[in-house]
Amino acid sequence: MEHKFAERARFVTSSETREILKVTERPEVISFAGGLPAPELFPVEALKEVCNAVLNEEGAAALQYSTTEGYIPLREAICQRMKSAGIDSSIENVLITSGSQQAIDLTGRLFINEGDTIICESPTYLAAINVFKSYNAKFVEVAMDDDDGMVMEELEQMLRDHPDAKFIYTIPDFQNPTGRTLKLERRKRMIELANQYDVLILEDNPYGAVRFAGEELPPVKHFDTEGRVIYLSTFSKIFTPGLRLGWICADETFIDKYVAFKQTADLHTDSFAQRITAKYMELYDIEEHINKIKAVYKERCTAMLSCIEEFFPNHLSYSKPEGGLFIWVELPEGIDSAHIFTECLKNNVACVPGAPFFPNGTQKNTLRLNYSNMSKERIIEGMKRMGEVLHRELQNDSLLTV
Amino acid sequence: MEHKFAERARFVTSSETREILKVTERPEVISFAGGLPAPELFPVEALKEVCNAVLNEEGAAALQYSTTEGYIPLREAICQRMKSAGIDSSIENVLITSGSQQAIDLTGRLFINEGDTIICESPTYLAAINVFKSYNAKFVEVAMDDDDGMVMEELEQMLRDHPDAKFIYTIPDFQNPTGRTLKLERRKRMIELANQYDVLILEDNPYGAVRFAGEELPPVKHFDTEGRVIYLSTFSKIFTPGLRLGWICADETFIDKYVAFKQTADLHTDSFAQRITAKYMELYDIEEHINKIKAVYKERCTAMLSCIEEFFPNHLSYSKPEGGLFIWVELPEGIDSAHIFTECLKNNVACVPGAPFFPNGTQKNTLRLNYSNMSKERIIEGMKRMGEVLHRELQNDSLLTV
Repeated sequence: MEHKFAERARFVTSSETREILKVTERPEVISFAGGLPAPELFPVEALKEVCNAVLNEEGAAALQYSTTEGYIPLREAICQRMKSAGIDSSIENVLITSGSQQAIDLTGRLFINEGDTIICESPTYLAAINVFKSYNAKFVEVAMDDDDGMVMEELEQMLRDHPDAKFIYTIPDFQNPTGRTLKLERRKRMIELANQYDVLILEDNPYGAVRFAGEELPPVKHFDTEGRVIYLSTFSKIFTPGLRLGWICADETFIDKYVAFKQTADLHTDSFAQRITAKYMELYDIEEHINKIKAVYKERCTAMLSCIEEFFPNHLSYSKPEGGLFIWVELPEGIDSAHIFTECLKNNVACVPGAPFFPNGTQKNTLRLNYSNMSKERIIEGMKRMGEVLHRELQNDSLLTV
Repeated sequence: MEHKFAERARFVTSSETREILKVTERPEVISFAGGLPAPELFPVEALKEVCNAVLNEEGAAALQYSTTEGYIPLREAICQRMKSAGIDSSIENVLITSGSQQAIDLTGRLFINEGDTIICESPTYLAAINVFKSYNAKFVEVAMDDDDGMVMEELEQMLRDHPDAKFIYTIPDFQNPTGRTLKLERRKRMIELANQYDVLILEDNPYGAVRFAGEELPPVKHFDTEGRVIYLSTFSKIFTPGLRLGWICADETFIDKYVAFKQTADLHTDSFAQRITAKYMELYDIEEHINKIKAVYKERCTAMLSCIEEFFPNHLSYSKPEGGLFIWVELPEGIDSAHIFTECLKNNVACVPGAPFFPNGTQKNTLRLNYSNMSKERIIEGMKRMGEVLHRELQNDSLLTV
């Protein structure tokens, strides 16, 4: 009865990379493939107290249907946190979503007509590519510099070439998959260009709060004077991903429409999860918790970078993130990282091949490494194994191509 | 910047009825307008123990990202409960969704092309109408009998007239908004017709487990021999709605595609909520809990029906539900229940006007009453007030039309 499916079902398949992740879940595999936060940092003990407090103080309300917009004290706490990051907003600008994945999806629904053009970093977040593809969008990729993020001259060229582009999709801080950050002047320039070419910006900012080195930068939305930046973020990287809590911060005109789509999508986000998160922020200092996360991720990132220096062939280029969860490695041209992945798996170590992160096809000589989900010892052991594979495979390759 | 919205944004507006519900939330209003379960029945005390157990036994996993398909022990428990209701399934047939609202929405995404025809009961569930409209579907309405649900002769006629209809959308048990139930022979006949005309059935069954009178009937899916029934249900009416847990039970071919769409929609449903619900069913007897709900709803429904007899004008017709949350009242033709609603609100009592439940327009002389969310005393007081309004307004009307 597959003939009954809608046309759009053709554009949606279970993500290849998700299938890869399943393979890497075998306990003997040291996996740098996923994008999971460190579970040992989840505030499990605190949450016992928090659940109890929520159920004691507002049990029935916490379990009842609630408003689509989201729990007011949670939205207030979000506004507060965004304020210290440089975004002025009120609760009317904030919609709670079921993870920031839903925020991306609702953005697709609200804005993308079939064939619309999205301008994005090259490479970019895989699950966003999948969402936008499900709405049958076209992608225009803009190259990034290793240290400074999206190249503004190229962005301007693309805006000139695609005057009907619907929005610029950007992950300015510690981008997934590259770990790169858009530098300050480019943030300002991106806003100027968006104003000039009358295009929206979708700022996806799940990692900005997890900066463990360098100087803090204001979000792109900080420079927005015309209400054209839609800002997305999440509690997944600073609290827990399992509760599925994200948010959209945007102009009220946009939020009103988002609310209408959210109603059709799932009525509202889990009331209990929202109250747990708000109560946690009331009873505990979430900044202190985030500082713990930063310290651990810094140690792991530093360890992984040292391992690249020590164990990997030395003509590779790679990013040196100041936050977030990922390092991006470029292998010599002509090397297919899918093959490296297969070889690594034989050594019980895993990464993610980079090709799927390029929406229009393939830059096959890239791979993404995650450092947040693994102890330093396991990182060292895994990187050793991966180094062996890379030495062998790159040698083979040079033998072949000489 | 509204010119940036996608075409489909035109079909989605914040539901009128939701706006009505906001007005009725004033504490002085006795509201029969919503569709909320009785909050005093939520197992708040049990949940304290359950949350503690989940966090003690599997804290980190309960807070981490998890699989799109859903938590296996929860899916197993669902299969078990469906088995006793007459549906044979395995966990491969079950996808956990963020409330059954998401299940409806994913169905729209997976199956509806622009302009596709959906055959449904007349009237039907408002939030499903809104979802299908957001995918730009057309609706063909089939009349219902007061006691027996959708009229099969009319369904067959509609299938003949609309050979390309995508699916039959039905709420066979204690339908929202009418409280009506599809009788046994018609369930079998519906399957026969679906087979004959090669059409899918979307069986939305949130209320079936809350039967407080009459004999239990097997779901439509029980009679499905060709895998053409997609069955949706939820924990909202038998446990808590705030946790947003629903599910889809369907053939694996369908579930695979649903999973792919669910990935783009929100990655997965709240891990903690899933484990809480599974743990509750492990530690407590949910059937016993449902029995308490049934007893209370039976008392409230009976009280409301008596009040209709006692306080309402006596030439009205209304449904006599054997379960669920709603009673449907038909006023004399020519009476606009939106006007009745306004007059009732002046008396601090509220119902929902019935017109929006008719996808193609208006049968304005109808209204929906909810009895689950209010004590017997409040029901009696509210029905008295509503009775006064109806007596006055119907009298005015007869004066006008004589």
